[in-house]
Order: sequence, then C-alpha cells, then structure tokens
Amino acid sequence: MSTHRCWYFNRRPRHEIEADTLQLRELPRAPLQDGEFRLRHLYLSLDATNRLWISEWDLYMPTIAPGSPMLGFVLGEVVESRHPGFAVGSLAAGLAPWADESVSTGEGFSPMPRIPGLPLAEAFGILAVAGPSAYVGLMDIGRPKPGDTVVVSAAAGAVGMIVGQLARIHGCRVIGVAGGAEKCRWLKDELGFDAVVDYRQGDLLGQLRQAAPEGIDLHYENVGGEILDAALSCMNNFGTVVVCGLIASYNAGSDPVPGPYMFRNVIMRRLRIEGFVVLDHLDKYPQYQQKLAAWMLEGKIKYRLHVVDGLARASEALKLLYTSGNQGKLMVRIGAEPA
Amino acid sequence: MSTHRCWYFNRRPRHEIEADTLQLRELPRAPLQDGEFRLRHLYLSLDATNRLWISEWDLYMPTIAPGSPMLGFVLGEVVESRHPGFAVGSLAAGLAPWADESVSTGEGFSPMPRIPGLPLAEAFGILAVAGPSAYVGLMDIGRPKPGDTVVVSAAAGAVGMIVGQLARIHGCRVIGVAGGAEKCRWLKDELGFDAVVDYRQGDLLGQLRQAAPEGIDLHYENVGGEILDAALSCMNNFGTVVVCGLIASYNAGSDPVPGPYMFRNVIMRRLRIEGFVVLDHLDKYPQYQQKLAAWMLEGKIKYRLHVVDGLARASEALKLLYTSGNQGKLMVRIGAEPA
Repeated sequence: MSTHRCWYFNRRPRHEIEADTLQLRELPRAPLQDGEFRLRHLYLSLDATNRLWISEWDLYMPTIAPGSPMLGFVLGEVVESRHPGFAVGSLAAGLAPWADESVSTGEGFSPMPRIPGLPLAEAFGILAVAGPSAYVGLMDIGRPKPGDTVVVSAAAGAVGMIVGQLARIHGCRVIGVAGGAEKCRWLKDELGFDAVVDYRQGDLLGQLRQAAPEGIDLHYENVGGEILDAALSCMNNFGTVVVCGLIASYNAGSDPVPGPYMFRNVIMRRLRIEGFVVLDHLDKYPQYQQKLAAWMLEGKIKYRLHVVDGLARASEALKLLYTSGNQGKLMVRIGAEPA
Repeated sequence: MSTHRCWYFNRRPRHEIEADTLQLRELPRAPLQDGEFRLRHLYLSLDATNRLWISEWDLYMPTIAPGSPMLGFVLGEVVESRHPGFAVGSLAAGLAPWADESVSTGEGFSPMPRIPGLPLAEAFGILAVAGPSAYVGLMDIGRPKPGDTVVVSAAAGAVGMIVGQLARIHGCRVIGVAGGAEKCRWLKDELGFDAVVDYRQGDLLGQLRQAAPEGIDLHYENVGGEILDAALSCMNNFGTVVVCGLIASYNAGSDPVPGPYMFRNVIMRRLRIEGFVVLDHLDKYPQYQQKLAAWMLEGKIKYRLHVVDGLARASEALKLLYTSGNQGKLMVRIGAEPA
C-alpha cells in the first residue's frame, strides 16, 4: 500500500461522540528514518478513557488537539525496521494512531510476546490494558482480604470481568453490577460471581443492600454516578473504594458533574477512596501479565471479546462503551493476523 | 442545688438551628446508684459535628432522638462518687448532656489530668477533641513528608489552627483557608502560616493557585463544598486529601448534597481521599495529648479560645460554628473552676 487510512480528531463533541467528531482520512505512507519502525496494525483496543482524550478536561496526560490523529492502544506487526529493538516480523503494542499502520521510534511501545495456546486477539485484548488495570486496582490499590465482600461496577466490561474473577481467586465474595439480564446471567453462571445486580431493573440501592447484606468492604468503581452513590451507602466502616473509571460522566463535555451525593460517608464510614492510572504501573506489567495469562490458559479467568471488524467502524464502535452496548472487551480488527 | 438545667433536643431543624430546636429544661437531681458518679460541669466543647447528631443522616454513631438530652463533650468535677475510678474532687471529660451536672457510670469518660502551667480551659479546649483530631488526621491519615505543601480549611478554627502548626513543626509549607482579614492576619502573623487564602475575597481557586504555585501535596478538609473543589483542582499527582469535616453541608437537612464537582481528579491526579473519626483513635490520646501539651507550654502551638459564658447561651453559641462566627476553639463555660 502506498497510502493508508487514519482517523483524525476533527471537532470536539459537546456530549456524545457525533458523526463529525472523528474523520477517516487517506494519507501517504511516511518514509522511515533511522531508529524507526513501521507497524502494520492488527487490533485497536477501545477503552472508556479514549473519550476523555478528546475532551477539554485536565487529565492524567495531555489531551489530543483537534486536527491531530486519534490515538488508542494498538497491537501491530513490525513490517519494516530501522530500529534495533523491534525486528521485522515481531509484534509490538503501544499507543498509536487509529490507522492501518504507523511509524514509531518505539516510545511508549513494548514488544508483545506470543503466548503459546493464547490467540493473539485474546492476549492483546485482556493483557494490554484491561487485565493489568484490574490487577493493579484490585490488588495493589484495593488490597482486599480473603472473605471480604467486593463489588465491581461495569462488571461485564473488560476490566470488571477480570476484577471479579481475581477477587474470587483471592477468596473474596464478589458482587457484580451490570446492565441487562444476559450480562448478569453470564457473570453469575459462567464467571462464578456470587451475586449480581442489574442496574436496569431499578432500585439499585435496594438491590445492592440485598446482595451485600453484610455491607461492602471493597468497591471497585468503573462507572460513577448513581452506582457509586449506592455503593457508598452500603460501605462498611474502614472500607475502600478503588476508582478506576467514571464512565457515567465521560460524555459530560463542559457540563459540571456533581460528585457522589454520599461523599460524606468518607467520614461517616471512615473510607479510603483512591484512584489510579494503570500507566503509572508499567513496571509491574510483565509479572501481572504472566499471572493473568496462566489463569486464562487454565480457564480460571474467563472473558468475552467484542471484536468489531474494520478500521472504518472504529468511531461507531467506540460509542458502544457509553451505552453499555459492548459484550466484553471491545476492540477493532484492523488487519489480518500474521500466519 | 436540688434541681439543675439541661438542654433537650426538642424539634429537628430543617436547616439552620432554630429557636425551638433545643430547649432548656429544669430537672430534679437524680439519685446516685452504686458504680456511678456525679459530675459538676465546668466546660462544654462545641464542635461542628454536634449539628449532625440532631440530623437524620446515617452517622458514625447513633443520632440523638428528639425528646432526649442534647449531648456534647464536657469537662467536669466529680462532686459525689460511688465509682472506684472517679474520686470526688477529680476531673473527668467525656460525652455528656448539655447540663449543669450529670450522673455517669464512667462509660465514655476518662479522668482529665491537671497539666502544670496549662489553664483548665485551654487544656480541655485544645486537648479533648481538636488537638487529637488535628494530630490523627494530619500525621496518621495524611502522613505528609517534610517539604510538602499542606492546605487546611477552616484554618482559624479549633482543628485547623492546630493542623497548620503541626504541619509547620513537621517541616511542611502551610497554607490556611479562612474567612475574613482578621483571621487570615492572625494565622500568618501570629501562627506562622506560610500563606493564607481569605475565601470571603472570592476567586478561591485563583487565590489558592497563587498561594500554592507548586500544587498541593496534602489537603486537610474541614469544610467541603467550594473549598474542597478548589483544593481538588490544585492537588499534585499522588496527593492526599484528609477529610475531617464537611461543615459546609451540615445544615443541609434532608436536601441532597452534591459531592465535589472535581471528584474525577481522584483518578486524574491519582489521589487518596481518606476520612476519619477521632473517636476511633482514643488509644493514641495520651501520647498525642502529651506532645501537644508540651508544644502548647513551649509556645510552639498557639491558639485562641472562644469561651461563651453560661449554659443558657449554648444553643445560640453553637450556631457560630456554621457562620464562621467563632474566633478559635468554641466552648461554653458552665460552672466555676474548682479552686
């Protein structure tokens, strides 16, 4: 190919992603300089935080300026290389444009090992972002004790499904909050969650109280809003709230977003509320990925991938995250896997 | 006296404390049983949390039912005793009715030692509640490093003034947020705060940014609302927010109280937000009170007491806390100190 396609951030959306928010453009192929490699993109990970990168919020990293390529976590095959660390034919994962291919100096990229027995899509989908986020947030930030009652929101999502199963492996009682009967059934019957709360059934607080009659020791938050408030109302004294995501507010644009109405329970229940960004914990990736991969291969950690086919559908696909329309880890297949 | 006076919780206020919220009644003196002692009350500590005890919120302790005596922390002299642990003539401090006297089994009371050189009012006012709250919250929950930038709200209040000076002793740079020029001058010129922010001057966020150009490492919150939001906007990555009080919302009644609008910064800045209740830390009181008393005697910790004279004025006095009308530690003098 002498040209390739790339999604650009075109116009800041006021709330939901709109038809002209992102724009797919055709670009000439860039020549390769010394110290660079060319990556043919295989998969693009779609993550809730992507929406924030095109917001005006003050984030944990610089936002993307309108007129620049849209970014995401990408798995690719090195197809041309003038970089000693990335050989032709090897795989690499990192932050890259939503595109058919990209040229990189390797900054923010790491080689992606092939794990015998684990298909590439699964290895990338679970191990690149969601798995380490679940592990760091639950174990390093949350630090539950066996026997604790753990609640996780967006429990059928990429991070949530791993959090729940890790907590089970750790000996905790696990309650998942998810949207819809099918997701709840899957969590309970196939993933072994001890209880589930379907927020679409209403009376979230009542349902959660019933599911956690002895209160919550650790709440792992991916959503915020009403779910966080219900959890805060059920927390036990000296409990912990791990904040990984607040997706309920990511389409707020410049609207003010009230914090949890039960914030006072940080005092009344003597809570620790702690947030994290998985990128701060890259040093632990190899260790955690190895553990997660072993559990995946043993079937102790199950998962669903929601793979959308074709780069052209990436913008539409991203919106699924904010309507709870995805079934498991959301990603886009861009190019065919190498033989 | 064969009768004494006692304040009763009469009618739940909708918001601010009203004229009929508390009611002073005349009661017959109760006879003493085995294992009880009679305390003649000398001082009543007025604390922001008292308002919550007559609210409908779910608290860190049971609320007071309408029709019951109003409670507070009291210092008294044992005037009659059938209790082996509390001798006649000794002093005791603990949770008791707002009254001229009370009868107790000793539960929730501890003997109050006389500290040579320290007047009783000062020892009780600073060491009974405010000082330990400042110490536990700053040092045990907040755990600042020397050189850290520490912000404290309600900085001229009972807890705030101690927090700021403890942080200075610990080698931190201290910024106080207080209401009014006189309080700010006092904090800066007499207590040695490095900078002050007068929230009555408006543009709280702009003022705080200017006072903390390198960001905030630790924020000690007594107020909530707009002040907490400004602090959250200025927090450094991996900073800590200690939540001791949220007085801005204590008159909310059953109105919903939005949490901080910048709550998302718990993720963006990777914050730890942790609340505490000083009553959970009674085991550390002797050690911390000893340290605080020594600094008070050396003049390293300065303070102001705001003493209102007479039990009959207790209800009016309590309201001062919610209008920032008190100058330092607020308390009521009920009876004359023993010779």
